[in-house]
Amino acid sequence: MSKIYDALDAIFHPRNVALVGITTSNPHHWTRTFWSAMREFEFKGPLYPVNPHGGELNGYKVYQSVDAIPGTIDYAIGTVNAKIAPEIVKQCAAKGAKAIHFCTAGFAETGQEDVKGLQDELTRLAHETGIRILGPNCMGIYCPESKVSFDPNFPKESGHVGFISQSGGNTDYVIMEAGWRGVRFSKVISFGNACDLNECDFLEYMIEDPQTEIIAMYLEGVKDGKRFLPLFKKAAKEKTLVLVKGGCGEAGARATSTHTASLAGNHAIWETLCRQSNAIMVHNVEEMVDILVTLSFIPDPGGRNALLIGPGGGASVLLTDEFERRGFRLPRVTADIREKLMGFTQLAGNMLSNPVDYSQSMMDSGSLEKAVDVLTDWDEIDFCVGFMRPSQMPREAFAALFMWGDALSHAYDVSHKPVAYICENGIIPDRQKVIFELVQKMVASKKAVYYSFPAAAEALRMVVEYNERRRLPKT
Amino acid sequence: MSKIYDALDAIFHPRNVALVGITTSNPHHWTRTFWSAMREFEFKGPLYPVNPHGGELNGYKVYQSVDAIPGTIDYAIGTVNAKIAPEIVKQCAAKGAKAIHFCTAGFAETGQEDVKGLQDELTRLAHETGIRILGPNCMGIYCPESKVSFDPNFPKESGHVGFISQSGGNTDYVIMEAGWRGVRFSKVISFGNACDLNECDFLEYMIEDPQTEIIAMYLEGVKDGKRFLPLFKKAAKEKTLVLVKGGCGEAGARATSTHTASLAGNHAIWETLCRQSNAIMVHNVEEMVDILVTLSFIPDPGGRNALLIGPGGGASVLLTDEFERRGFRLPRVTADIREKLMGFTQLAGNMLSNPVDYSQSMMDSGSLEKAVDVLTDWDEIDFCVGFMRPSQMPREAFAALFMWGDALSHAYDVSHKPVAYICENGIIPDRQKVIFELVQKMVASKKAVYYSFPAAAEALRMVVEYNERRRLPKT
Repeated sequence: MSKIYDALDAIFHPRNVALVGITTSNPHHWTRTFWSAMREFEFKGPLYPVNPHGGELNGYKVYQSVDAIPGTIDYAIGTVNAKIAPEIVKQCAAKGAKAIHFCTAGFAETGQEDVKGLQDELTRLAHETGIRILGPNCMGIYCPESKVSFDPNFPKESGHVGFISQSGGNTDYVIMEAGWRGVRFSKVISFGNACDLNECDFLEYMIEDPQTEIIAMYLEGVKDGKRFLPLFKKAAKEKTLVLVKGGCGEAGARATSTHTASLAGNHAIWETLCRQSNAIMVHNVEEMVDILVTLSFIPDPGGRNALLIGPGGGASVLLTDEFERRGFRLPRVTADIREKLMGFTQLAGNMLSNPVDYSQSMMDSGSLEKAVDVLTDWDEIDFCVGFMRPSQMPREAFAALFMWGDALSHAYDVSHKPVAYICENGIIPDRQKVIFELVQKMVASKKAVYYSFPAAAEALRMVVEYNERRRLPKT
Repeated sequence: MSKIYDALDAIFHPRNVALVGITTSNPHHWTRTFWSAMREFEFKGPLYPVNPHGGELNGYKVYQSVDAIPGTIDYAIGTVNAKIAPEIVKQCAAKGAKAIHFCTAGFAETGQEDVKGLQDELTRLAHETGIRILGPNCMGIYCPESKVSFDPNFPKESGHVGFISQSGGNTDYVIMEAGWRGVRFSKVISFGNACDLNECDFLEYMIEDPQTEIIAMYLEGVKDGKRFLPLFKKAAKEKTLVLVKGGCGEAGARATSTHTASLAGNHAIWETLCRQSNAIMVHNVEEMVDILVTLSFIPDPGGRNALLIGPGGGASVLLTDEFERRGFRLPRVTADIREKLMGFTQLAGNMLSNPVDYSQSMMDSGSLEKAVDVLTDWDEIDFCVGFMRPSQMPREAFAALFMWGDALSHAYDVSHKPVAYICENGIIPDRQKVIFELVQKMVASKKAVYYSFPAAAEALRMVVEYNERRRLPKT
């Protein structure tokens, strides 16, 4: 393993954590999020809250300064005012800390010369003392394996997705949304202004990390293009790489400079880079979540032949449009298959074609399960998409939603063909609770769940095309 | 008014309704939806349930046949088996009914010759007796003004959107989703197989109907192209016309034939037609709902200069990308405006540019309201977009969501500039209830509410471009 791997791996697995600048008086203050998260995750090592006022926090002694902490420290989370950040770096370095993360904002991203100087001072101190700095202006590290988290609501289990993100909010969004849909992460870093440790360091780590199979990135800019390019290509080759590049246009680039003091670069260059190296480039974090769900549960759909099945004629037609528009094929149901289906269902109110509208017979759970068996067993099909639109269902039919979920789970278990499940998510009274429970159930049985027709079709298209390119003979 | 206007207007305003084939034994049977809907809407005239078993239903006498109903009838909803549909047409015609709607499926859409004949028989009977037939294989009429509905959950109030749809499920989806977001409808028709009354009749009606300003259509195919074309162009010219065309590709077209026995036609022809006549063509019902929300609350954003404001740097960058990618501009905040903002807020943790990230000062409601005032007052801005991403907010910050809503409502009231509001909708524990309440509040104050960044940007793009084309000098 490389030197940077060892350095970062130690940061991901600290033996103790000092929380410098945490507020003791107001439990709703933003600095307390880190405290709640570490406690909720039951971090194994000692936690050292630091605040000049001293006292106690949830039974823990609050140290009045970093110096007052007994022995050495491994890792510090700094939420102090920007002005005293350099002093805190010195104190932590003196205590033997390998790294300090500054959540604190108010540095180069403000565009003001005096605070820009403050950030340069941090960089200088990192080089001088050997301590590594994460940030400033970021949320830091989430590593479920070592029980380090910056949000108490993140999943406790580890997984195979590594996420490198320049935005704390986008990191939160992706972990919460993808996490709720069953995606699990190996290591996540929100790295903000990157005054010392930067995207290249994290990318190098993720490439080497045996736990990480998929590398997701949200980038606003790159500090060291020369080092970055070969790493990016290597990551795309050796693992699966998904990128959201923030700051496409003029105002977007302006925003990245005020957000993380980044130079956004030309968007076309990024597109070319992704195409050449077979990285999956998505437009936004919504698409990134859909891609991570697909890569986690349907890493390779195997081909472009889809079977669509669910209740509703109009819904069937529109879902078919979404898939055909993106180059998928829906093989025609053969006479043989149709005959099998007719053995236990009817034509009126159903469409026993592909797409299959199974409205009329849906409430008869035995028949639905048989139909799904027959259809997923069909060898012309690469994958199956089950769809459901709670907002168009009467209250009385909600029970059918759950039968549907069960029949699809069953089909998956017996056919071993990938099943994607779409449960359209609207904000409608009565429906929300049902959608919540249904999605929860599908996710618990490790299904790929999507919230809209176009989102599912688009994610599957990107993953199918990614795999097609991977299978091409190398020239 | 034309003859067809008068005929359809009478159908939209029946004096009484017979529900023929309604099940009396099972309150959860699908035929009961119509009964629940008419009762929930408190339809003013008599309701006549008809079922050979007779008896009573919720205190109403159930007639054993159509003949047994006293006096004449105006309108009938038929949920009988396809085989006896022709007989019911004759009976209703004999009772003076102006129209009958058949929800019943199992006609031409099955592709079977015997039942295809059954549908032809209905067409023949309509011509012979003069009764008009709606369907078969559809949900019929929703007209809140006359208190006719096929779903008890639809909004009770009338509005200015007329919707003509060949799919019952898509009709339900659009009314429920757009309805919940504040869109109100004048008249809606789900017309299915169109054995007698067809899309041309409804379109002609909507063009003449003074209550209808926006005409939305979900079409799978057209029965009478020659009559349809000039009507379509007239509708696009005299009102605002939005179209979803179902059945783009091979399997989609196959599905429209099994769904409503329609010939889907070439998709490119539809695109050309819409471009030439300045109709808004959308890909799916999700986009249609977003467009209807926009047309209802921001009918003309006035131009392409946007102000984006909300909490989160990464979110700001990505939302900016969505807008710039679609040809919007974000004017740079002037020194003057920035100075005004600095009077009551700070740079650290905020971005006082455009986009405006107001994370740090968000909890201070007075400051937020002032900032929104200053920014929406800025004359370079055509419209304002407020955004919120509950899934990235800690529980403790939920209160801020509501302050945000209030500040934006206030801005709208004082600036008279259009405000679009994005509340990203995820399915995450704790968040759902907050999102529900927030959206409900925004909708109640007549704001355009969207559930995702790309959805809002895309809908606003389509409506802005629609208005730009409308303003072009006619050649």
